[in-house]
Amino acid sequence: MKTAVVALGGNSLIRPDDDGNAEEQFSRMEGTCSILADLIEGGYDLVFTHGNGPQVGNILLQNEIASSTVPAMPLDVCGAQSQGQIGYMFQQTLENELKKRDVNRIVSSVITQVVVDKDDPAFENPNKYVGPYYEEKEAERLRKERNWDIKETSDGRYRRVVPSPKPQKIVESEVINTLIFSGEKGHIVIAAGGGGVPVVEKEGQLHGVEGVIDKDLASAVLADSIDEMFFIMLTRVDGVYLNYDQEDEKFIESMTVSEAKRYLEEGQFPPGSMGPKIEASIHFLENGGEKVLITSPEHLDDAIEGKEGTYIYRE
Amino acid sequence: MKTAVVALGGNSLIRPDDDGNAEEQFSRMEGTCSILADLIEGGYDLVFTHGNGPQVGNILLQNEIASSTVPAMPLDVCGAQSQGQIGYMFQQTLENELKKRDVNRIVSSVITQVVVDKDDPAFENPNKYVGPYYEEKEAERLRKERNWDIKETSDGRYRRVVPSPKPQKIVESEVINTLIFSGEKGHIVIAAGGGGVPVVEKEGQLHGVEGVIDKDLASAVLADSIDEMFFIMLTRVDGVYLNYDQEDEKFIESMTVSEAKRYLEEGQFPPGSMGPKIEASIHFLENGGEKVLITSPEHLDDAIEGKEGTYIYRE
Repeated sequence: MKTAVVALGGNSLIRPDDDGNAEEQFSRMEGTCSILADLIEGGYDLVFTHGNGPQVGNILLQNEIASSTVPAMPLDVCGAQSQGQIGYMFQQTLENELKKRDVNRIVSSVITQVVVDKDDPAFENPNKYVGPYYEEKEAERLRKERNWDIKETSDGRYRRVVPSPKPQKIVESEVINTLIFSGEKGHIVIAAGGGGVPVVEKEGQLHGVEGVIDKDLASAVLADSIDEMFFIMLTRVDGVYLNYDQEDEKFIESMTVSEAKRYLEEGQFPPGSMGPKIEASIHFLENGGEKVLITSPEHLDDAIEGKEGTYIYRE
Repeated sequence: MKTAVVALGGNSLIRPDDDGNAEEQFSRMEGTCSILADLIEGGYDLVFTHGNGPQVGNILLQNEIASSTVPAMPLDVCGAQSQGQIGYMFQQTLENELKKRDVNRIVSSVITQVVVDKDDPAFENPNKYVGPYYEEKEAERLRKERNWDIKETSDGRYRRVVPSPKPQKIVESEVINTLIFSGEKGHIVIAAGGGGVPVVEKEGQLHGVEGVIDKDLASAVLADSIDEMFFIMLTRVDGVYLNYDQEDEKFIESMTVSEAKRYLEEGQFPPGSMGPKIEASIHFLENGGEKVLITSPEHLDDAIEGKEGTYIYRE
């Protein structure tokens, strides 16, 4: 049995110019699920993780706008809502695609909490933008009323910032393990949506915190915790480049962890985009993982056969 | 190993006069989870189901209020969001309670779809109120714009009505089965929240529909589908009564399916409250279930020992 953890890029479910209505989201998912179904038909058992930025952004905005009528939910609860939403849409769409192909597999979504360190330095330096934009006055009011950290963005407007602590442990890893390794063919599992709901441990008790965990890092920790050997990250580009977008850009077909580390130190991979994926790869491979593939959904079929994409190996 | 499916009443998570903020919801859950932890400590493996009325009501209201800025999601998607929200709050609170008692068990939430018949007569007669109240003019606008069925309520205001079709099949029953019967001690599973997300099957494909499935009926179908023998419904009252709230009311300690059917036909159990629970009991026992217990959370400990509550048996 071949298995893999696949981290889907944000574009797989909703795109920047999309209106974001349900019909459109379902139709974006169809495209993604067709590619994933190829992988499943090819004999892979899969655990998927996915982003939730636009969805949780919309939920936060709804919470804001309606806050004088309905008590606004904290970010951890909104994140869990988005896991329910995306999980539902995703499992239905993927199962439908599989049924069209006469592949009889069950897809399920597990609401996932991810433990972060309560002393993570990120809590001292919230820098991840979430939710809607505000004008200065509104920002001032929300700072006071909700005790939020709000920062000026590059275009002179204001937006809430939350910490992005490092993921340490997937609370539901045993559940996910049970599902994927059950029976001859395991179940297909959707987990750690949006990087998971961040929780801290205090005197043995878990409590949600308002923060956002990097989805790729959370996926790497998930892959570790279920002893998965193969970790795939899907993104906008077909693979990893050196000197990306410059005249002398060079595609990397494969590299080792130590090469990846060196390039990362050289500043080849910017923090906002490829950086976290390379960090996630390093984390995964240094904790027992075997290989990582970074490519775009469109190139996945060929990449699985080693013809496209960037592979990263332990050594 | 003793196992049971437990359907929690709406009051377990939020109460009519509650403000409904997250802190309050978490604190209501603590009380419920303490009672459930007693059952788990007593050796039971459990699948829980729960209502979602107030939570999905709030989500629908937020969707309404923000609809000119954020595309409103259909009811099936909102239901899935509420499953994510309640599942998260519930699994965290129950695990915390179990950890306090040094009981090391994993609780997980499975996003659940429930198949209903696309020709269910309920689709011709939507009668389940959902979401906010409207004034006449607003109601007229929404009827046209959204193609909603809106009815006048007893107090002269208006509210959306959706069909309440009968549950036929739990799409994720195999997943739930895998989880509760894995290893020596199974996982504790939260499923079919709010009666599950209703879906219809068309040419082998599943599609969400805007409707609400009765939570107790969905729980009975779930219990059947995982071959569970014991089905517990928790509600406001300590058990089932004949001539309830009248001078000659009489507590029922136990009854058979045929007695339950007779009382139901006699009109002993009103449609809004005890009726669906008795219907769910009959469905469960006629499809292979062994025993049903109806009681309140406060009486559960004693009821499990047979000292309180109402038991219903196959014969």
